[in-house]
Order: sequence, then C-alpha cells, then structure tokens
Amino acid sequence: MVELGTQNGLFTIIARELEQVEARLRAPATESRGLLAVVVGHGLASGGKRIRPALLLLAARACGATMNGRHVELAAATEMMHAATLIHDDIVDNAATRRGLPSAMARWGSHVSVLVGDFLFSRAIQTLVADSDFRIMGAFSQATVSMTAAEVLQLQLLHDLAIGESEYLEIVTGKTAALMSAACRAGALAAGASESRVEALAAFGLNLGIGFQLVDDALDYIAREERLGKPVGSDFREGKITYPVIHILRRASAGDRALLERLVEQPALTDDDLLPLRDLVERYEAVPATMRLVDDYLGRARVHLELLPDTPACQALHRLSEFVRERDW
Amino acid sequence: MVELGTQNGLFTIIARELEQVEARLRAPATESRGLLAVVVGHGLASGGKRIRPALLLLAARACGATMNGRHVELAAATEMMHAATLIHDDIVDNAATRRGLPSAMARWGSHVSVLVGDFLFSRAIQTLVADSDFRIMGAFSQATVSMTAAEVLQLQLLHDLAIGESEYLEIVTGKTAALMSAACRAGALAAGASESRVEALAAFGLNLGIGFQLVDDALDYIAREERLGKPVGSDFREGKITYPVIHILRRASAGDRALLERLVEQPALTDDDLLPLRDLVERYEAVPATMRLVDDYLGRARVHLELLPDTPACQALHRLSEFVRERDW
Repeated sequence: MVELGTQNGLFTIIARELEQVEARLRAPATESRGLLAVVVGHGLASGGKRIRPALLLLAARACGATMNGRHVELAAATEMMHAATLIHDDIVDNAATRRGLPSAMARWGSHVSVLVGDFLFSRAIQTLVADSDFRIMGAFSQATVSMTAAEVLQLQLLHDLAIGESEYLEIVTGKTAALMSAACRAGALAAGASESRVEALAAFGLNLGIGFQLVDDALDYIAREERLGKPVGSDFREGKITYPVIHILRRASAGDRALLERLVEQPALTDDDLLPLRDLVERYEAVPATMRLVDDYLGRARVHLELLPDTPACQALHRLSEFVRERDW
Repeated sequence: MVELGTQNGLFTIIARELEQVEARLRAPATESRGLLAVVVGHGLASGGKRIRPALLLLAARACGATMNGRHVELAAATEMMHAATLIHDDIVDNAATRRGLPSAMARWGSHVSVLVGDFLFSRAIQTLVADSDFRIMGAFSQATVSMTAAEVLQLQLLHDLAIGESEYLEIVTGKTAALMSAACRAGALAAGASESRVEALAAFGLNLGIGFQLVDDALDYIAREERLGKPVGSDFREGKITYPVIHILRRASAGDRALLERLVEQPALTDDDLLPLRDLVERYEAVPATMRLVDDYLGRARVHLELLPDTPACQALHRLSEFVRERDW
C-alpha cells in the first residue's frame, strides 16, 4: 500500500503529530489484556494511511492552531472510529483480508470482531467525551449515524441495477465522506475557527471524501491485484453497483443491459465470468467517466479552501486533494 | 416474558414517562427508510422489560426531579444502547431467538445486524450529545467500554473451567451491571443530585445489575423452556462457565470434576448429555448457592438506597431489587 505521508511529503508539516497519533493508538491495546489487547492491537496497527487524523490535524493547522496534545487526542479518536468501522465492514463484506493481511474477522471470527469494533468505537467516544466539546462530539456522532445508515442502504441495494446516481452518492457520502468531513470540522472547531471556516473545511472534507470513494470504486475496475490486494471487479462480485456500472447502464444497448442483468444474478462469479464486464467497462469508458466525476468533486473541495489563508497546511490539503486522484494507480 | 411493570405495579409512578419512552423509541425507525427502518423497528419493539429506562427515571425521581422530556430522552437513549448490545450479542452468541422471536441476526443475517446495532448505538450517542451533559456522556461511554471489554473476556474464557470467581464477576459487572449503574447515575445527574447521592445510586445500580445477571445465570439451570424461550443449560452448551458451575468446581470430587471436564470439551451437547450436569447442579446445590450470592449483592444494593429520602421512587427501587430475585421463577 502506498504510504501517503512518507512517499509524497504531503504530511511533512504534521509528521511529528502523526507520530504522536501512532503512539496514542497503541494505548488501547496496551491498556487491555488477553484477547482484547491482541485484536485491538491488530485493528489499530499502523499500515493504514491515517488520512482522517491527517485531515483533522491539517484542518486545525489551516485555521491557525498551534498543535498540542488535544489535536493528537482528537486525531487518534478519529482513527479509532475509522478502525472500528473497518472491523465491522469486514464482517458485513465477509472479507478475508484487509490491507493484504488476514482481517480480524478471518482471524478471530465475527464474534470477536463485533465486540472489538464496539470496544474501539466506545474508546473513541470516551476520548471525545474527555475532550469535552459538544460541537465536535456532535460532528462525529452525526457522521457515525450517516455511516451506518449508508451501509445499510448499500446492503439493501446489493445486486440492484435500478440503483440511481443519487442513491449511489448518498451511500458514498455516508460511508466515506461523512467521517472525513467530521474530521475536518473537528480540526477547525478545535482551532477555534470562525463559523465560515468551520463550514468551509467540513465542505472540503465532504467533497474530498466523495472523490476519494469514487476513486476507490474506479480502481476496483482497473487496479492490479498486487496493489489493492483484491481482484478486479470485486465490488460487482459482492453485488455492489458502483458508479462505473451506473454509467454503463445509462448508456447500455439492450443487449449489454441484458448481459449485466444476467451477470448480477449469477451467484459465484469467476474471473472469467467477469471478462464481459471488463469489456463493457472499456467500451463505455466507465473509468474515465468516473474520474470526470471525481474531478468534479475534488474541484468543489478545492473551492472551499479558497476561504482559508494560504498557509503550508492549506497547501497540503490542496495537494492531498490532488493526490487522492492519483493514489494506487 | 413477565412484564415487570404492568404485572407488579413496580413502575406505576413512572408509567406515563415509560409510555413516552416507548413513543420516543419508535422515532429511529420512523425517521429511517427501507431495510434500516424495518430492522431498527424490530430491535426497539416493545416486549422487553425496559428496566434500564425505568432505573434512570426512578433514580431521577428518587433524587427529587420533576419528570420532563429530558428524562424521557435520556431513558430512551439508555434503551437504544441496550438494544444495540442485544443485537450485537445475538451475533456473538449466534442466537436464533430473542424473547421468543427470531433474532435480527436470524432474520436478516449478521451483515445487517452489525450495522443496525452500530446505527442504534450511534443514535443513542447522538441523543446524549443533544442532551449536552458531559458527566452523563462519560457515564455511558465508560459503561460501553466496560461492556465490550467484558464480552471479549467472556469469549476468551469460553470452555475454560479454570475461570475464577473474580473473573466471572468482572464479566458479570461489565456485561450487565455497568449499563444499569450508568442508567442510575445518569438519572441522579439529570436530577442535579449531590455527589453522594449520585454515587449511591450508581452503586445501587451496579450491585443490582450483578444480582440481576447472577439470577439469569441461576435461571439457566432451572427455568422451564416455555418461560425463557431457551433450553436449560444453554450457557454451558455455549461454553459459558457461570457461577453455578464455578460453585460446583470448588467443591467437586475428582470424579465430578473429570465429568465436567469431559462435558465442557464435548462439541455438540444434547439435552441427554446435559443430564449429568443437571444432577451435579442438584447435588452440589449450585442454584441455592448462586441465590445466596444474589442476596448478598441485592443487600448491598439496598444499603445504598438508605442515603436517599424515603419517597415512592426510592421504595420502587427497593421493591425492584426484591423483584429481580424473583423474576421468571
């Protein structure tokens, strides 16, 4: 997996704080015992890109905050919340791997994973309670409500080719953008920023997050296995109808639509079964179409940055919005 | 299932507020759509005893509060949190039924259940955030950390006859007593009670909750199927070593211990396989021994009520502590 921070120097100005976040993320495991300590350690182990903590820290810096322990605590809480959702998502998706390693679900079963996800989420809430800012708590609790509602909607619309773009965007916004937006909002709030800057950063995070997820959904149709650790077309295999397929459906000939309808009904799709889908993706230029939508959202994200003074932190957020587009290619 | 409130008049003085709690608990479903609305409605449907909301309301009343919408909101949040843990517990225990009906897990699968539990928990947090009392938030977030840690410990110690009384009590305290204690503490805090009364009610709830769970664990060895909706010895069947068995192990002859060791290793225990266990429970008087411990904890709970003025609410809490002992027999 590409290490965003180290490889691209994007997070250089918050490198020290990100290290402190890493140290802070080791606490829930070391404070626990036995099985809980092991699984929590697995769930919080570094290896992720830590984008959400970075967003929070950069948003705070962009609003003029001098970094302190409070920002590190909030950034760590954000990542704990994210880790909790990943652990539960792996149950939902029945995922064997996560970042190329066995998922908690695969190693310890859904029984343990449900509880450890709950534990991490509770520890995140506890950290926010200790911070004692109701606007920040509100931002995160709103985000988690959106996330879970969106994930249920996604389940409900599995294998459903009638999914519209607006429903798809509702899912994307809830499952990915809401927490990124909350992280940016929390950073701005922790910096004591003005209302307009708080809203600008929240809107930046929301649009960035939508772009981020759209890139993910595009990557699913092109990424090489060794990069993402999962085969091409795995979203479709799981019944997830994402933007590339929605794009095809809007333009598809009767024959191509019938092909998609047959494929989506088929229970266990092999790589060979998916070859016609890959052909449709090529033919209807579904990936470039998705990337145009990505650019649209990332452009909107950047507009919101214009409200902020031109500081290194603001520039880093700007470059992050560019890098999101390029990741993993 | 015995309806505590209606059958025994225990909750008469808060009957109106409990009705408002019921109405409030219908909101998360009506505010949602599709699958989410259905499963949330299922999770929050009345049928439970609503003991936690009742504890919160009675604790507030016992501290002199005049009931208002705030208490109803907090009581509803407590029940949402409880409902979330039940939905997740059914995944952990792979439970087919809950209160005699198919569990969410059985009806919609663990995929949906994980998310709906998360949704309800997030809505509970959101309700607490709207209430804006950090001491109350802190009480509930501490409780959920304890609950999840205890549930993981319970999983870790499944089938482990070496479990000690202190570990068992740690599990019981975390998984059941912590939330009851938080409910009582929250009620007292919402009433603006003095520090000593807040602590007294929290301690009452904690001891009551331990007693409550111990009764549950005793019931598992005696309850008739039609009452609890699950067969006798189901805890042991699931590998849960509870107080009755711990009591036997402390006194068991070498032969009886060997019998237990054989049983606990056996993968799929039938009712007939469990007959020797039921014999041990009889012979070592494991149920009366458990009930002595119950009386010990309920007695401790009542001592804490002595710090409160003798009001109808305090009397109701007192009677609740007596009724807990008798429920479902």
